[in-house]
Amino acid sequence: MFLAMDAMGGDRAPQEPCRGAIMACEADPNLNVILVGDARRIEEHLRDAASSVRARIGVVHADQVVTMDDAPSVSIRKKRNSSLRVAMEMVRSGEASAVVSAGNTGAIVAGGILVLGRIPGIDRPGLGVPIATLSSRVSLLIDVGATVRCKPINLAQFALMGSIYMRSLVGVSEPSVALLSNGEEEIKGDETVIQAREILKASSLNFVGYVEGKDVPLGTSDVVVCDGYTGNVLLKFGEGLGEGVMNLMREEISRSFLPKVGLLFMMPMLKKLHYRFDYERHGGTPLLGVRGTVIKAHGRSKARAISNALMVARDFVAKRGVQTIEDELAKGGI
Amino acid sequence: MFLAMDAMGGDRAPQEPCRGAIMACEADPNLNVILVGDARRIEEHLRDAASSVRARIGVVHADQVVTMDDAPSVSIRKKRNSSLRVAMEMVRSGEASAVVSAGNTGAIVAGGILVLGRIPGIDRPGLGVPIATLSSRVSLLIDVGATVRCKPINLAQFALMGSIYMRSLVGVSEPSVALLSNGEEEIKGDETVIQAREILKASSLNFVGYVEGKDVPLGTSDVVVCDGYTGNVLLKFGEGLGEGVMNLMREEISRSFLPKVGLLFMMPMLKKLHYRFDYERHGGTPLLGVRGTVIKAHGRSKARAISNALMVARDFVAKRGVQTIEDELAKGGI
Repeated sequence: MFLAMDAMGGDRAPQEPCRGAIMACEADPNLNVILVGDARRIEEHLRDAASSVRARIGVVHADQVVTMDDAPSVSIRKKRNSSLRVAMEMVRSGEASAVVSAGNTGAIVAGGILVLGRIPGIDRPGLGVPIATLSSRVSLLIDVGATVRCKPINLAQFALMGSIYMRSLVGVSEPSVALLSNGEEEIKGDETVIQAREILKASSLNFVGYVEGKDVPLGTSDVVVCDGYTGNVLLKFGEGLGEGVMNLMREEISRSFLPKVGLLFMMPMLKKLHYRFDYERHGGTPLLGVRGTVIKAHGRSKARAISNALMVARDFVAKRGVQTIEDELAKGGI
Repeated sequence: MFLAMDAMGGDRAPQEPCRGAIMACEADPNLNVILVGDARRIEEHLRDAASSVRARIGVVHADQVVTMDDAPSVSIRKKRNSSLRVAMEMVRSGEASAVVSAGNTGAIVAGGILVLGRIPGIDRPGLGVPIATLSSRVSLLIDVGATVRCKPINLAQFALMGSIYMRSLVGVSEPSVALLSNGEEEIKGDETVIQAREILKASSLNFVGYVEGKDVPLGTSDVVVCDGYTGNVLLKFGEGLGEGVMNLMREEISRSFLPKVGLLFMMPMLKKLHYRFDYERHGGTPLLGVRGTVIKAHGRSKARAISNALMVARDFVAKRGVQTIEDELAKGGI
């Protein structure tokens, strides 16, 4: 399997994408990664790779870079030789099975739509993040930033794709699907959410109605649907809180002796908690609704997170994720 | 000072509002609370109050109740003898200085607008919650549910009221004001957020641009502005996460001995953390933008939270909160 990696995307490019590619190829002897970007700079970071690994890493030169400040669709249209666009084109032509990027989210979404095209029956793609919850369940939060403001039909289509993802790719039977709202009662929600609720009620999905913000960490449903603005704010809020609490604990601990002793005893439990919520471990988010496997990695990704995102891409391809969604939609959209 | 308390609002009414009123009057010998609602049921809960406290608690009968499922403005218009409406009318007539309710948020907002009226220069009111952050700063998050979907001007007016609140009532000089968005870059945000940003840039506020979800718990600005849908989801997400993590810790601790020992040592620190994020301690949220002091308490409020909400009302009145906002707006709106 050949995966195209946008080597220039993300806060730590090209170093971490290159190191991540090496790590992934070390872990899986059947994997091939094509690094797309500034060939000279990429080669520098590949110097230390073992020859058995280096043999499975290709380099394709692209002399433009989509930056974090670039306007999404303009940059995809104009920067035809950007690492992101070239990597996307490799998926379209079949040279690669998937593309992974830690770059500009909007440009990744625009690239997915413009270069790969949408799956029939889907108007706007959604980024679906599997999130660890405090129950044993992993919930899929969709959308976390692909479609910033949504029409009711967009939300309903996210629900459908999320449901297919959880059933066919994660193995949850009859996944429960909920709409995120500002309260559980039917009088809550704005016009968009209310209309999406009516569409979902009439659908064949296992729709359980509204959930509130507090239900997201508690994991009360398999799929949680919201627009990309809200999902993005929520996801990053959780991240900031997690990091912040860890910092605060470190601070407190450095200040006095008692908690230090306590921490020693609690370490195994804290490690377990951290493991559960560690985004680096999950690594990548599939862009659902486009005709090709596109995995968005976190902008701050280090090598381990990039490597995990490549594994997410590999598994998504192996499980025929795109084809599954396309087949299910052909049977009946929403 | 006389405060009107909606005795029938909230998940635990009328018991907890009554107990909360007693608690507040015990704590402050200058406070008078008027409990509005089903007089017979209210009296039952006042039986055990000391006579010095009981003497400062009035009871006004109202035979209707606005439920959580009632449509906000319809219920305020139709249920003219509901505890909420009667309590609001007491503020309008001057019989009470403020109203506190743990009931239906939408109805409280509708009541504020219809019974008390808006402050000139404000189109829609906003619920502003002071939130503890991981820095030493307390940030004001506005709106958390008064105006579910906003126009750009609504967001700009929240920013203005939030700024006045933090400067004049909390004592922060030149409070920094940020707009919540799905990224820090200017290309982020939907049309509403982008237009609000342009209005704020041109204003005299200390506007610092966009913040992301992760900045909210980190406390990077004094005021964080968003629409009521997003603010509500965010606030409840934080609440759910806090409670969930506490439960998970309890579970882990009951399972093995080591963390139990650790917890013993860490208790002082955990208590400090919990104190910082305990919503019961803050109690109430002022509805900013209406011509009267309206404090929304959490629907799940127990006596202590109700008592604290009454204290928030008392302080808001003492600091002439409504008049301050009105005066500042008269000098120049947005």
